[in-house]
Amino acid sequence: MSFHIEYPRIIPERRPSAHSPAAPRYTLRWEQPVAMLTSQYHAIEASDLPWKAQKAFFEMAEASFAEADGPVAHERMRFLDEAGETNAVVVSYWLDATAHARWTQKSSLSAWFNAPKRLLGEQGCWRETIAVPYDRHETIYSAPHYRIGFARTPGSVIEAMTTNGYFGAARDRFPVSAIDPLDTPLTAYPEVSRRLDTRGRRLFACSPHNMAALRSGQFWEPSEDEQRQDYLDNLQPKLHRGMDYLLSNKQESGTLSLRIMTNVGEDGEGRDETSVLAHFLSLAQLEGWAKSHITHLDIYGHAIAMNRKYREMRQVVTWHEAFVMPASCAFEYVNCHPATGLLACADLYEQAK
Amino acid sequence: MSFHIEYPRIIPERRPSAHSPAAPRYTLRWEQPVAMLTSQYHAIEASDLPWKAQKAFFEMAEASFAEADGPVAHERMRFLDEAGETNAVVVSYWLDATAHARWTQKSSLSAWFNAPKRLLGEQGCWRETIAVPYDRHETIYSAPHYRIGFARTPGSVIEAMTTNGYFGAARDRFPVSAIDPLDTPLTAYPEVSRRLDTRGRRLFACSPHNMAALRSGQFWEPSEDEQRQDYLDNLQPKLHRGMDYLLSNKQESGTLSLRIMTNVGEDGEGRDETSVLAHFLSLAQLEGWAKSHITHLDIYGHAIAMNRKYREMRQVVTWHEAFVMPASCAFEYVNCHPATGLLACADLYEQAK
Repeated sequence: MSFHIEYPRIIPERRPSAHSPAAPRYTLRWEQPVAMLTSQYHAIEASDLPWKAQKAFFEMAEASFAEADGPVAHERMRFLDEAGETNAVVVSYWLDATAHARWTQKSSLSAWFNAPKRLLGEQGCWRETIAVPYDRHETIYSAPHYRIGFARTPGSVIEAMTTNGYFGAARDRFPVSAIDPLDTPLTAYPEVSRRLDTRGRRLFACSPHNMAALRSGQFWEPSEDEQRQDYLDNLQPKLHRGMDYLLSNKQESGTLSLRIMTNVGEDGEGRDETSVLAHFLSLAQLEGWAKSHITHLDIYGHAIAMNRKYREMRQVVTWHEAFVMPASCAFEYVNCHPATGLLACADLYEQAK
Repeated sequence: MSFHIEYPRIIPERRPSAHSPAAPRYTLRWEQPVAMLTSQYHAIEASDLPWKAQKAFFEMAEASFAEADGPVAHERMRFLDEAGETNAVVVSYWLDATAHARWTQKSSLSAWFNAPKRLLGEQGCWRETIAVPYDRHETIYSAPHYRIGFARTPGSVIEAMTTNGYFGAARDRFPVSAIDPLDTPLTAYPEVSRRLDTRGRRLFACSPHNMAALRSGQFWEPSEDEQRQDYLDNLQPKLHRGMDYLLSNKQESGTLSLRIMTNVGEDGEGRDETSVLAHFLSLAQLEGWAKSHITHLDIYGHAIAMNRKYREMRQVVTWHEAFVMPASCAFEYVNCHPATGLLACADLYEQAK
C-alpha cells in the first residue's frame, strides 16, 4: 500500500454526496513515506538568448544535478515571458528536503548562481523553490501511463482515484485541507508601493503564507490525426485564452506570476509538451477562476468532452501538481527585469552588507 | 481521543526493546486537529531598561494580543543577555498559522515594530517566529497539572506517555522522525565572514533547514522547604552550569543562541519560574550534549533522582517544547547589538530599497 496522510476532518469536504466521477482520473502516491516535497526552478533570461547559451546553461545545470544530493528528476523547458525575454528553465525535484539543502549549499550550479558576475551584462537568472510538507500538495493526471514532474521521482506510483470531477476536488485532494482552510492572510492583492531597480541586483522575494503554486501540464507528443488536430485547434487555443485572461487580470484573479513553458529536447527544439507554472495568492482564488470563469469552463469542458469521446484511446495527457506553501523567502532574482516572477508583487530583500 | 500524527516508520526508533520508563512523564496533545504550531517572541533590549519601559512594552503587546487573530496564549519574561543588556520578552502562541499571519499583517504591535522610529535610540527590539508543521514538534512535562507554553492553548491536554527515560526519546517523540533523520544540511557551524553593523538597522536572519528550537522550563513557585532548597541549591546551579557550558562552547555544541528567561509577574518581580530558549544547528547536536556531556548528565540525573524521591509529591515541575524548523527567514532584529539572537551566526538580509 502506498504512503498517504489523512486527517480527521473538521472542514467538510467539497465532494457532493454520493458523487461518482464520470471518468477515471489518477493521482500520485509514493511507495515510501515522503515528509516534504521540493521542486526548484533555475532559469536564465535575456531578450536575445541563442540556443547556444541555453544549451550551455542546460548542460551546466544537468552536470550539477549529477553531483551529490542532486535532484531525483529534472526537465528542460523554455518560455517567452511577459517582457518578451526568452527564459531557459530547468525544473528539478527532490523528495528529501535536507538533500536539497545540502545540494544547494555546495553545488556547482549554486556557485555559478551566487557568483558576483551574475549581476553583470544583459542576462538575468532566477531560482524559485517550492518546498512543502507532504500534506500541502495534490496532483491529478488524465491517464496513468505518462510520467512527468514529480511522477518521475523514485518510488512514485500513479493511482486511480475518485476525488475528481467536481468543483472543490483539487482542494479535497490536499490532505491538510481537512483541517486547514488554507486562506490567504492578505486582504488584497499585494501592494507594491514603489518599483525598485531590479537590474544589477540580487533580490529575494518573500511569498505570503498559503500562496498556491501550480504546474499544469499538456502532453500531446504521441497524438495523431484527429486528436492532434483537436488539441492544436481547440484545447490549446482555449488554454492560451485562459492564461491570457489570468495574465491580463492579475489582481482580480489573484495571479502573482504565470509562465507557459515548453519542454525542450536535446536539440533545442520545443517538444509537443507544455506546462503552465503559476502562482496565486490563494487556493480560493485559483478555485474561483476554475469554477466560474468562462475561460476555464471552456478548457475544462473541452478536455472532459475529449476524454469521454476517446476514453482509454485518448492520446493527449493533461495533468497538474499543486502546492500551498507556508510563508517563504525562497524566490531569488539576479539582474532580472522587474516583471520577472514575484518581483512585482512581493516584499523584496537583499543580503545585508 | 486526542489528535496525533504517526507515520509508518522507515527510521528505527531509539527506544530500547522492552523499555518501560521508571517514572511517568507527560506530553501535550490537542483535542482538535492542529496543522501548524506557531510560537513567536517579541522583545525589547537595552543596557538600561527600567521596569517602567518593560511594563509599557508588556502592556502594549498584550493590548495588541487582544486584537483580532491574536495569540491564544502568552507570557511575560525577562533576561539579561550575553552583552549584559536587559531584554523584556513576550512569548505568544497560535494554533492557526493563517490567523498568526493575519495578526502580523495588521496588529498594532507589528505597526510599532515596523515603525522607522525603532531604528533610533539606545533600545533595540527583535521578533523571532517559530512555525512548524505539527509533525515537527515534541513536548515533555514532569507532571500533568501545570500549564505553561503551548500547554496553555485551547484544546490542549497533557497526557501520560512512555516515550521517555532513554536517550533518543525526544527524537522519537517528533512524529516526522519516523521518516526523516532531521539532519542539518550544514557541514560546520555557520561561518560569518564579516561582522556587520547591526545598530540602526532592521535585519532579517535566515535560519538553516532543520534548526532545532527548544523552550525548556522550570517551575518551582509552589515548592517549599526541602524541595525548594534542593532546587535552589542543586538543580538550578546544575542548570546554570549546563547553560554556561553551551554558551561558552557554541561551535562545539552547535548552539546558535541561548537565553535563560525568567517569567515576570504583574508587578515586575521575577516569578519562581524560568525557561531556556535555545536554538541549535541540529537536533543531533542537542542530543549529543544531552547524552554525553557531564553538565547535562548532572541536570538529568538530579532531576530524575528528585522525581523518584518525591514521586507525585514532587513540587518542582520541569518541561520543554521543541521544534525542528524547515528553512526560515523569520528572525528580525531592529537596532540590536550584534550578539542578539541569530545575528552572529545566520545569513542576514534587509529590505531592498
